[in-house]
Amino acid sequence: MPIVQFTPFSSLVQPALWHKLSDLKLDVLKLSDAAVPVTASYTAGRSVKDRETGQTIALPCSLTVGAESFDEKARPPHGAVSAVGTLKNYNTIEEFKAADKTALFNHEAQAIWDNIISSRDSSQLNRFLVITFADLKKYKYYYWFAFPAFVSKPAWEIGDEGWRAATEEYSSDDLASIHAQLSARASDSTPLPYFLVRKDVNTQGDVLVAPLESYAALSPAPEVPGEAGNTTTAESSGTSLTVAFIDPSADPANPGWPLRNVLAYLRALYPETTGTVKVLRWRDTEVPAGGEAWKSQVGTLTVASAEPGTTSAVQGDAAARPSAVGWEKNPQGKLGPRAADLAPMMDPARLAAQAVDLNLKLMRWRILPELDLDKMIEARCLLLGAGTLGCYVARALMGWGVRTITFVDSGKVAFSNPVRQPLFEFTDCLDGGKPKAECAAESLKKIFPGINATGHTLAIPMPGHPIPPQASALAQAKADVAKLEALIDEHDAVFLLMDSRESRWLPTVIGAAKGKIVLNAALGFDTYLVMRHGARASSLATGHNGKPHQKLGCYYCNDIVAPADSLTDRTLDQMCTVTRPGLAPIAAATAVELLASLLQHPDHLHAPAPPPTTSSAPDADGADSGNSSVLGLVPHQLRGFLAQFRTMPLVGAQYDKCTGCSETVLKAYETQGFDMLLQAFNDVKFLEKLTGLDKLFEEGEDALRDIDWHEEEDEDDF
Amino acid sequence: MPIVQFTPFSSLVQPALWHKLSDLKLDVLKLSDAAVPVTASYTAGRSVKDRETGQTIALPCSLTVGAESFDEKARPPHGAVSAVGTLKNYNTIEEFKAADKTALFNHEAQAIWDNIISSRDSSQLNRFLVITFADLKKYKYYYWFAFPAFVSKPAWEIGDEGWRAATEEYSSDDLASIHAQLSARASDSTPLPYFLVRKDVNTQGDVLVAPLESYAALSPAPEVPGEAGNTTTAESSGTSLTVAFIDPSADPANPGWPLRNVLAYLRALYPETTGTVKVLRWRDTEVPAGGEAWKSQVGTLTVASAEPGTTSAVQGDAAARPSAVGWEKNPQGKLGPRAADLAPMMDPARLAAQAVDLNLKLMRWRILPELDLDKMIEARCLLLGAGTLGCYVARALMGWGVRTITFVDSGKVAFSNPVRQPLFEFTDCLDGGKPKAECAAESLKKIFPGINATGHTLAIPMPGHPIPPQASALAQAKADVAKLEALIDEHDAVFLLMDSRESRWLPTVIGAAKGKIVLNAALGFDTYLVMRHGARASSLATGHNGKPHQKLGCYYCNDIVAPADSLTDRTLDQMCTVTRPGLAPIAAATAVELLASLLQHPDHLHAPAPPPTTSSAPDADGADSGNSSVLGLVPHQLRGFLAQFRTMPLVGAQYDKCTGCSETVLKAYETQGFDMLLQAFNDVKFLEKLTGLDKLFEEGEDALRDIDWHEEEDEDDF
Repeated sequence: MPIVQFTPFSSLVQPALWHKLSDLKLDVLKLSDAAVPVTASYTAGRSVKDRETGQTIALPCSLTVGAESFDEKARPPHGAVSAVGTLKNYNTIEEFKAADKTALFNHEAQAIWDNIISSRDSSQLNRFLVITFADLKKYKYYYWFAFPAFVSKPAWEIGDEGWRAATEEYSSDDLASIHAQLSARASDSTPLPYFLVRKDVNTQGDVLVAPLESYAALSPAPEVPGEAGNTTTAESSGTSLTVAFIDPSADPANPGWPLRNVLAYLRALYPETTGTVKVLRWRDTEVPAGGEAWKSQVGTLTVASAEPGTTSAVQGDAAARPSAVGWEKNPQGKLGPRAADLAPMMDPARLAAQAVDLNLKLMRWRILPELDLDKMIEARCLLLGAGTLGCYVARALMGWGVRTITFVDSGKVAFSNPVRQPLFEFTDCLDGGKPKAECAAESLKKIFPGINATGHTLAIPMPGHPIPPQASALAQAKADVAKLEALIDEHDAVFLLMDSRESRWLPTVIGAAKGKIVLNAALGFDTYLVMRHGARASSLATGHNGKPHQKLGCYYCNDIVAPADSLTDRTLDQMCTVTRPGLAPIAAATAVELLASLLQHPDHLHAPAPPPTTSSAPDADGADSGNSSVLGLVPHQLRGFLAQFRTMPLVGAQYDKCTGCSETVLKAYETQGFDMLLQAFNDVKFLEKLTGLDKLFEEGEDALRDIDWHEEEDEDDF
Repeated sequence: MPIVQFTPFSSLVQPALWHKLSDLKLDVLKLSDAAVPVTASYTAGRSVKDRETGQTIALPCSLTVGAESFDEKARPPHGAVSAVGTLKNYNTIEEFKAADKTALFNHEAQAIWDNIISSRDSSQLNRFLVITFADLKKYKYYYWFAFPAFVSKPAWEIGDEGWRAATEEYSSDDLASIHAQLSARASDSTPLPYFLVRKDVNTQGDVLVAPLESYAALSPAPEVPGEAGNTTTAESSGTSLTVAFIDPSADPANPGWPLRNVLAYLRALYPETTGTVKVLRWRDTEVPAGGEAWKSQVGTLTVASAEPGTTSAVQGDAAARPSAVGWEKNPQGKLGPRAADLAPMMDPARLAAQAVDLNLKLMRWRILPELDLDKMIEARCLLLGAGTLGCYVARALMGWGVRTITFVDSGKVAFSNPVRQPLFEFTDCLDGGKPKAECAAESLKKIFPGINATGHTLAIPMPGHPIPPQASALAQAKADVAKLEALIDEHDAVFLLMDSRESRWLPTVIGAAKGKIVLNAALGFDTYLVMRHGARASSLATGHNGKPHQKLGCYYCNDIVAPADSLTDRTLDQMCTVTRPGLAPIAAATAVELLASLLQHPDHLHAPAPPPTTSSAPDADGADSGNSSVLGLVPHQLRGFLAQFRTMPLVGAQYDKCTGCSETVLKAYETQGFDMLLQAFNDVKFLEKLTGLDKLFEEGEDALRDIDWHEEEDEDDF
C-alpha cells in the first residue's frame, strides 16, 4: 500500500509581525533573547484555478504570523485555527547563525511529546518554533521556522482507494452538521484544529463532533491483534469513529502536516485501537453553495506495529519520543533561514521616525532601563534666538527625540552665519537672507520630517529700549508681548539664547510667572554660562527627599542694576559676539543635557542643585541625598572655561530684589500686565525703583550678596 | 562787479576704497578711530555734450578716492593731481553720528592755515577730511566729506568781462609751453595743483611755469595802495604774473573749489600785491588736437581790503584764520552723510568668504591681538569618520575658518543619522543612503562654497580583522592602506572619530610615524575622551621653556592588550554607540578647541600638558611655566562626565610597549610597511608579540603603569 505523504507548512509572515517585533525588542526584550510565546493561525487549504490551463492548483499550507502573534489573547481569524509557538530573537546575526538549532528543535518536540504523554492535551500538537534576528538599523529580518512533526516508524500507509471525497462516507447533512458543530464551538472557545467525528452506522443518527481528548470515551473496542487494516471490527460495533483535522493542504493526494502529530498522539496514547485509523481531512470552512461540491476528504490509514527492537510509542513509554522533523526550507529549497527586507516597502518618513526613536530606546536596554524617554520627547521647547546657540540647542533637542521645537528670532540669515549656525547654508543668505526663525524651522523639517517645528519673526521688547511714542509702535510692542506670552504658554521649556543681556528679561519674567522651565545660555569669548532659572518656590513645598525646595536664582539675581540698553553703540566685535567657535556647541549641548537631567528628576523644576563644593572626583556624587536624576546631577549654573578646558558648577540663591524673578516684579507683572512691562521698557530706572535696588545703591550698602562666584560683576556680557 | 562763485568738490568714492578700508579696519585699525592719512586726486574739469540738445554740460568737480588712497606712495593717475586728506573711521554708527564735526573741520582748516602761515607750503591747500563708519556685517559704508575752503571777506569780485578764454591772453604757443612745462614737472615729481605763470609782456618771450611758493621771487612790485583793480601797474613793470590752478570745474562761469584756498594763501602771505590777481583756470590736460579749442580760462579778480574792525588775513596775523566752509551735501541736497551699500554688487561667494573671516578677525581686535589665525585657517584636517563626531568636528573647524577638510568613512547615510549628525538631512537617506564621506563634504560646500572639502569612501583595515586570503582582498587592503597613508601625508591634523577601538590603530601608527597632529575623540554613554596623541619625542629636544619635551601617550598607551576585533557580534546598542545626544557636540568641539590651542602654542605638537593636579580654580593657571598658548592650556587628555557636568584633564605617559606608538611598532612599520601591517591585521597576537606585551602578561607582572586615571581598564568602549 502507498505510504502517506504529508505537505509541510509554509510560513507566511506578515510585515506587521516585524514591526511588532521591533517594538518588542526596543521596549521590552531589549537585550534578552529569552523565548517569547507566539501564536499563528492556519486555515483549511485553498486552491485556485489556473486561468489558462483550467487546472486546479493547491496553494501552500500557510502558517500565518502577524502583529497579533504576540498577543496571547488574540483569537484566530474567522475560519482559521490557532497554532502555538515560540519565538527566539537573537541579538546579533552571529548569534543567530550560531544558535544550537538541534537543541532548540528537540526542546520544542519534547514539549509537544510531554503534553501528549502527561496530559493527553492536543492543543500543543501544532507547536512551532521560529528563531529570528532583527537588524533594526536596516529593517532587515532574518528568520527560520520549524514545525516539529513526529516520524512514524514504520510509516503510515493508505489503502489503494487513496483519499476519497468525504461525501462517499458522509451525507451532505452529515457534513453540514459537522460544519455547524465546528462553528458553534469556534464561537465560544478556541476552534478545534483536531476533532473526532462519531457516527452511528446503524441508526443513521446524527454525526457527533468531539474533541480529540474524548477518544478514549468514544473509541471502539480494541482491535484484535493481527487484524490491522480490517475496519469491520469497529464498524461492526455499530459506530464509526473518524479522526478529523483542519487540513491546510489543498493537495488531494497529500494531507497537511498537522495530521502527523495527530497520528503520533493516537499511537502514543491508544496503541491498541489505532493500527487502523479513519481520517477526515476537513477543508469545508463554508457549506458549499449552489452546485459546488464538498471539499473534505476521507481516507483509511494503517500502520504496522513497530519493528522489533526499536523503541516505539506503542509501548507507552513516555521517554521513548519518536524522532521529529520539520525545519522549513528557504525559497531556494535549502534548509536555511529566510530574510525579510522591509526597508524598500516602508514610508521613508516613517523609517526616519523609527530610526530616531531607535537610538533613544537603545539607552534603556542596558544602561538606563529607568530612563523615562517620553518626558524628553514630549517636552515642547521654545528657543528664543535662532543664532549659534539656537541652532545647536535645536540639534541636540532633536537628538533627544524632542518633537516640538519653536524658534523666535527677529533677524535674517547673514553670510557669516552658516559656518557657525548649523541650521543654515549659503543659499539661505542670498537676496538679503531668509528670516532666521522660519529658516531654522524649515531646516529641522529637512533633517527630520516628523518634527513639529515652527519659526516666528519677533523682536522681544527690552527694558531700557523705550517704545517710540507713536500709537503704531505701542500697538506693535503690545502685540509682540502678547505673542511671546502665548508662545511661552504653549511650551514646557524656554531657552534664552539671545545675544544681549536685556533681551532675556521679558521671557525671564513671563517664564517665572507661568512656572515654566527656563534655561539660559550665554557666551563670552572663551567662557560660557549655562543655567536653569530657579522655580518660584513656595516656602512650604518640599522635594521628594523631604527637604524644602531650594530657592535658586535667575540670570538677574546677581545684578545690582537693572538690565538696560547695552546694544546701541556697540563696536563690531561686541555685536558679533566674538567667541571661540567650539564654545557654542558645548554650551548649547550642555543646556540641553541640563534639561534632560532636570526632566528625569522626580522634583523636576525643583530638583535640588548639587553644592558647588562637590569634589572634582567623578564618583564623589554617589552619596548625594536626592540630588541626582537617573541621568545624574542637575546643577543650577555651569560656567565653562575653554582656556582651561574646565567646567564649574555654581549655585546662586534667589534674590528678593531681583529685577527678573523677585515676587515684587512677578506680582507687578501679574496684576498690571503690559502696563508694567511698558514702564520697564521705557524707564531705565523703573525696575530698580520697583525692586528697591535703587535705595540699596543710594544708601551705599554693600550690595554684594553671598554668591559663590564673585567675578560675575566684571563680565559685561553675562 | 560780480562776486566770484566757486563750484564745490564732489566726492567720488570707488568701491575699492571700502574694501581697503574693511581690510584696514579688520587687520590694522581694529578698534582704533585715529585719523588715517589718505590721498585723493582730481583732474581738470570735463564736460560732455548732451546728445539731444547739443548743450555742453559740465561734469561735477570730482575728488576721487579709491584703493590707492591708503597708499602713501601712490601717485595720481596721468593728468590728475593729488589732494591730501584725513580719514577718521568710527566704531559705531552712533559714534559716527555724534562726532564733533565742527571740531574736526576746524582742525583740518587749521592745518591748512598753519601750513600757509608757517611754511608757505601750498601742498596742503586742497586738504580734505572724510569721516566714515563701516558696517562690515552688512557691507554698508556711511561717510561724509569736507573740503575746507577759507571764506574771503569781503568777497572776490571779477571784472565785467568775466572769465575769458585763455587764448585771449596767451598764444597757442604759450599755452602749449605751459602744458609742456606742467607735464615735465609731473613726470618727475608731484604734479602741481597750483602754479604761477610769468610772461614777459614786452619781449613776448617764453612763459614760465613756477610753483606757487615762488610768488615772492616772481611777483611784481607792491601795488600802490588805493589803486586796487588797476592792473596796469603790474604790467607796466614789464611782466605779467598769473596765478594758475588745475581747475576741476568745467563750468565756464564758476571756477573750482581749489581757487579759494589759493587766493587765501596769496592774501595771507602777500597782502600788498594781491588786491588784484590774474587767474588762469587750467583745464587743458591735453594739447587740443585738430580744430579743438583750448579750454583754459583767464579772469582778473579783485578784492577790497578787509573792512575796518574785522580781523583780516591781510594783517598777516597767523592767529587770524579766516572762517572756512566745505562740508559736502548729500544727494538729497542736505548737509548730511552719504551711504554706500556694497552688498548688492558683491559676489555672494566672496561675501560669504569675507563674512567668515570677519568673525575670526574680530577676535584679534580687543581680546587676542596675538592670536595667529592663519595657523588654524591653514591647518589641513583629515577626519576619519563622518558620523556624529565627524560632522560636529567639521562644523567647529569651519567656524575656525579651516579651509581644507577631508572626510573618510565607509558607510552610507542611514535614517537614524540626520538628527544626530549635523551634515546630513532626510533626503540623504533615501534610496539606500548616500556615501557618508562624500555627502558630508558636499554639505560643507553648501554651507560655505569657499571650502575645500572632499570625501573618500574607504574602509580602514583593522588589527584582529583578518584580510581574506583571496588576492583581490589583499590588493584592496593594500590599496586602502596606501590611500590612507597618502591622505595622512597631505594633511596636518588627523582626527580619529570612528566608533570602534581597533579602527583607530592604523591611523595612530601612520600619524605617529609621519609626525602629524593626531586628535582622538571617543564616546561612552555619558562620558567622553578627547586627547591629542603624544609626538614622537626626541630625548634631546627641548621646548621653548627650555625643558625637555614630554613624552605623552597615545590612545593605546594604557592598554595591556592589543586592539582586536570588537565589532563582530555586537548587539544593537553596542553598534549604535548609544550616547546622550549632547555628548558628541561637546566632545567634538572640545577636540577642535584642543587643536586650536595646540596650534597657537610655540611648541606646537610638543606643547607641554598641564599637570592633572591643577586646582579647579579657573585662574590658578596664570602662573604656569610655558604651558599656555595664547588660547590657554593645551591638555593631553580630557575626560568628560555628563552625569556630573564635569571635565577632568589627564596626562598619560608614552608606554614603551604600546601597540600604537612605541618605537618598536613605528620602526617595524617604517621598515616593513604593508607586510608588517598585514601581520597585525591577520594575527591577533602579532602586536603583543612585537611589543613584548605578551611576555609581560605571561610573566604575570603587574602591567598597570603609573597612570593618573585608573578606571580606564574598566571601560570597554575607550
